[in-house]
Amino acid sequence: MADYTFFTNPMSRGQIVRWALHEAGADYETEFVEWQDKQPAFLEANPIGKVPTIVHHHGDHSHVVTEAAAICHYLAEMHPDAGLLPRAHEKADYFRYFFFAAGPVEQAVTANAMGWQVPEERTGMAGFGTYDRAMDTFEQMFSDRDFVCGDRFTMADVYVGSQVDWGLSFGSIPTRPAFEAYAARLRERPAYKKAKAIDMKLIEESQNG
Amino acid sequence: MADYTFFTNPMSRGQIVRWALHEAGADYETEFVEWQDKQPAFLEANPIGKVPTIVHHHGDHSHVVTEAAAICHYLAEMHPDAGLLPRAHEKADYFRYFFFAAGPVEQAVTANAMGWQVPEERTGMAGFGTYDRAMDTFEQMFSDRDFVCGDRFTMADVYVGSQVDWGLSFGSIPTRPAFEAYAARLRERPAYKKAKAIDMKLIEESQNG
Repeated sequence: MADYTFFTNPMSRGQIVRWALHEAGADYETEFVEWQDKQPAFLEANPIGKVPTIVHHHGDHSHVVTEAAAICHYLAEMHPDAGLLPRAHEKADYFRYFFFAAGPVEQAVTANAMGWQVPEERTGMAGFGTYDRAMDTFEQMFSDRDFVCGDRFTMADVYVGSQVDWGLSFGSIPTRPAFEAYAARLRERPAYKKAKAIDMKLIEESQNG
Repeated sequence: MADYTFFTNPMSRGQIVRWALHEAGADYETEFVEWQDKQPAFLEANPIGKVPTIVHHHGDHSHVVTEAAAICHYLAEMHPDAGLLPRAHEKADYFRYFFFAAGPVEQAVTANAMGWQVPEERTGMAGFGTYDRAMDTFEQMFSDRDFVCGDRFTMADVYVGSQVDWGLSFGSIPTRPAFEAYAARLRERPAYKKAKAIDMKLIEESQNG
């Protein structure tokens, strides 16, 4: 048995996790989840049936992790030799932007896609303020760095970078030079290429099946 | 100079961070941020002007951390002796629910407060599904545990627990026995009581000032 069972559908945030699995060098097996026919083993692990979900077969224990961001960081913790965890002076940026991307950015992008507007008098109540302010803050991060933690790639870049990469592909974040340059750097990574190739093949097979 | 400068307004998610500072036993000084008159030192640290924000004076470096969830976990990392970090077999639950609370729960609560509805055909696109589904999943976490990681309090409980504590107080999450019992456990903690007393006093003073 592989160390991890990876429940995913290639047309989902599972793509983020597959990239993370390859960056970490994790030993995993994929369980393809059909939207309309979810397998019992998956629903047992995660009753709400949300992909991506991983099950880590860890010694005598089986640990379930959900939430793409949580899975990414968890994999970095489980594979310290891959060098994806932050060093002491990188931790502030690492966690700050990991949670910024998983919270305000995700929320702003969803609200924007749904056509939801935050009334001006309630922007303090919404953690992301407004879509424009969230995007400006996000862009500002890149004013002095190539990666989340500076000049070195960490696991935070898999998650934060996927928000940028997907956002540009689907038009859910604005096209700006800082975002495009960052995405271009990430798309060069061997683990990114390998993971994407697997998911693209699965998508093709499922469409032809 | 204290180890941390804590920029906050007591009427904000800063209450979460003050509780975290007390759980960690951190040496900090509070800088009160007025909504309409933000001090230059604060805007220099965090140009978007969002509280809570901490500046960690760490050796030769000054590290800025924003996002309440990120600050909580960062403090746990900086104060390992406080015992708030997860042990090896607690990491899956710790990160899973930390990000679940910062992502889907926060998003569901905001959408609900704003009166935003996810159209049924787009629930797969919204990371939180629907408000009801997010709340049911959240409640399910408590079916077999007293705290996020089982029977032991960790920093994840400061953040996840604040969502429950605030949610019950403001009516933004539904009143359910599992949520109420969890909040009651948390309100007994000395660090919670101490932090809340400070913020309540600041609120009182600012209203009388």
